Amino acid sequence: MSKIFIKPKTKEEVKKSLISIGNKIWNDLENEQNPYLEVPVRALRNIKFDPKQKKLILGSAVLKRYLLHLAQIRKFVQTIGVTSLSKELIESNKHISLREAFYVLKRTIEGTKINVVDEQEESNKAIEDLELIINALREQLHINANKLGAVAGNVIIRDRGDLIDWSKLGSGGWSVPSNVEEIEFVKVDADFVIYVEKSAVWERLHEDRVWEKLNCIIVASQGQATRGIRRLLQRLHYEHKLPIYVLTDFDPWGIYIYSVIKFGSIALAHISDRLAVPSARFLGLTGDDIEKYGLKKHLIKFKEIDEKRLEQVRNYEWFKENKKWQRQFDMMKNLNAKAELEALASRGITFISEKYLPEKIEKNEFLD
Amino acid sequence: MSKIFIKPKTKEEVKKSLISIGNKIWNDLENEQNPYLEVPVRALRNIKFDPKQKKLILGSAVLKRYLLHLAQIRKFVQTIGVTSLSKELIESNKHISLREAFYVLKRTIEGTKINVVDEQEESNKAIEDLELIINALREQLHINANKLGAVAGNVIIRDRGDLIDWSKLGSGGWSVPSNVEEIEFVKVDADFVIYVEKSAVWERLHEDRVWEKLNCIIVASQGQATRGIRRLLQRLHYEHKLPIYVLTDFDPWGIYIYSVIKFGSIALAHISDRLAVPSARFLGLTGDDIEKYGLKKHLIKFKEIDEKRLEQVRNYEWFKENKKWQRQFDMMKNLNAKAELEALASRGITFISEKYLPEKIEKNEFLD
Repeated sequence: MSKIFIKPKTKEEVKKSLISIGNKIWNDLENEQNPYLEVPVRALRNIKFDPKQKKLILGSAVLKRYLLHLAQIRKFVQTIGVTSLSKELIESNKHISLREAFYVLKRTIEGTKINVVDEQEESNKAIEDLELIINALREQLHINANKLGAVAGNVIIRDRGDLIDWSKLGSGGWSVPSNVEEIEFVKVDADFVIYVEKSAVWERLHEDRVWEKLNCIIVASQGQATRGIRRLLQRLHYEHKLPIYVLTDFDPWGIYIYSVIKFGSIALAHISDRLAVPSARFLGLTGDDIEKYGLKKHLIKFKEIDEKRLEQVRNYEWFKENKKWQRQFDMMKNLNAKAELEALASRGITFISEKYLPEKIEKNEFLD
Repeated sequence: MSKIFIKPKTKEEVKKSLISIGNKIWNDLENEQNPYLEVPVRALRNIKFDPKQKKLILGSAVLKRYLLHLAQIRKFVQTIGVTSLSKELIESNKHISLREAFYVLKRTIEGTKINVVDEQEESNKAIEDLELIINALREQLHINANKLGAVAGNVIIRDRGDLIDWSKLGSGGWSVPSNVEEIEFVKVDADFVIYVEKSAVWERLHEDRVWEKLNCIIVASQGQATRGIRRLLQRLHYEHKLPIYVLTDFDPWGIYIYSVIKFGSIALAHISDRLAVPSARFLGLTGDDIEKYGLKKHLIKFKEIDEKRLEQVRNYEWFKENKKWQRQFDMMKNLNAKAELEALASRGITFISEKYLPEKIEKNEFLD
């Protein structure tokens, strides 16, 4: 268990921070000062990979954004617009999506023909700014990203007053919401968590009751983990000390899914603390598995786009100096091909559940 | 409530059909006959829109596929491969995905260097052929499509021995599996079903407890409804007499989502009976709503791809003669723009739940 887990602020604290922004502006105006917001810079030049913390983090550069400044007033007003919307959402205990937030903020300012925002990019940026200004997650501002994915395991949670047993939800499992900030873990009986990048493979593991047999929690979405899922993984990791294992194909895309869960992403570097699990381990297919499990026949030849992506991924700072990973990338390059988890079905329908996973976990065959 | 609902065969019946295929081939060989399969033709020339049944259906053209025929043996063996795999799956009570099925069938025939299939397209086609030959759904062959989507409502189901209450699953809801053939409805207390094309809007409706206030079931995936969801809608409609309402954006893509749920799709015309709900009603945004709810400001200008899609969709046989729909398409064309459900948030965060939906349903403002 590494690194500090920044405990989310409580709802009351978030609300207080939002109100204090309003108060500060009000005071400045009363004192005939030009109100400003201090916004950490999210440009690439202020994002770096911290090898000690093993994640992408934001540097210390901050800019001041003034209300009475021709080039800054628009962004200033947008950020205040989000601040006010978020306060309203928290008070009414409602949540909205990024897209809805855009439409709400697209309102025309009275007596003008000017909208607070015209494009969703503007409202998104304003939301990200506010996240940084008050050091809270978008989800804590009651603004949600996409909902995707399912989970099963020996876990009981409380959510909106309901007691939900993740082990008793038939073939479907619990549908992971976009926002898991307020779910409460009542019972967590598991040794680790497997995140798998494909719903179909999740259904395989679920039907074979892998979560029961290996005493774990299984989570999936489709491709990249949503923010809701990343927060779920993070909470299970830090609050319940569960290791996170990432199960993907042997290709640059799968490895990048692992990379985002472990190190964070460039787009969200400013909240790596809230989303990344630096100790996450790769349990996906490796170049060695191809040989070991006789999957050569099932390799899928690289297209140009795969080749390009491989070069990008292997050159990320956090992979560059990692010999084990570079060895995998070399194997991938030499094969000039990828392999899918589903290929394990050629060894037997339940091979992945009954042989591959138990064996790899027991022999500690992870990549880090 | 229109049309006949073809009750799914039982598991035993499906298994019997599979075995009878094997027996027939065996007998033919023993009698020195050349074994063949009768496969309904799925080419476009054999697909038509039936205005009476209001859905896409397969014509009566059938072709014979022989084992001892140089051009046909490959497909013959592939179909038999699926038959055998499906029997094995049913007997072991396991399900697999299309992709897994492909890898299983990619096995090399003993003593040769020939694989039963080389591409997933081949195994997919063989599966579709088998669906037609024994008149069962792929899901009944234990071969599943994608899993996506969530559901909430006053419904209790039994699935894999678990009793699941769709009204007590917190913010997430029940995650809809890829295969709903074997779920059992224990209690269904609802007047209708809303399928919404966006998970974010589902979260809006769910947070506002629309299913409780309007006594309905709310279902969503992302975009086109998965086969699992379409079967769920169909079962709720035919087995529990619930009308199906489809809630989408005002754009050709949204209307096509409605169209597929209602009439079926060309790709799956051969199983329209098992997937379509011809009485489904459109509850999505209309050209009239733009005016009525003041959404003009939030129109999104058409791109070329939207224009093209509009022309395609409006010319489908089942829309061509429909004056109400042509009027909508005209409005869309004149506006040269689309509108999203999320735009209703500009009228108030819960406007869609508390005003828009109840009003439209009460005033019977559906499009059919």
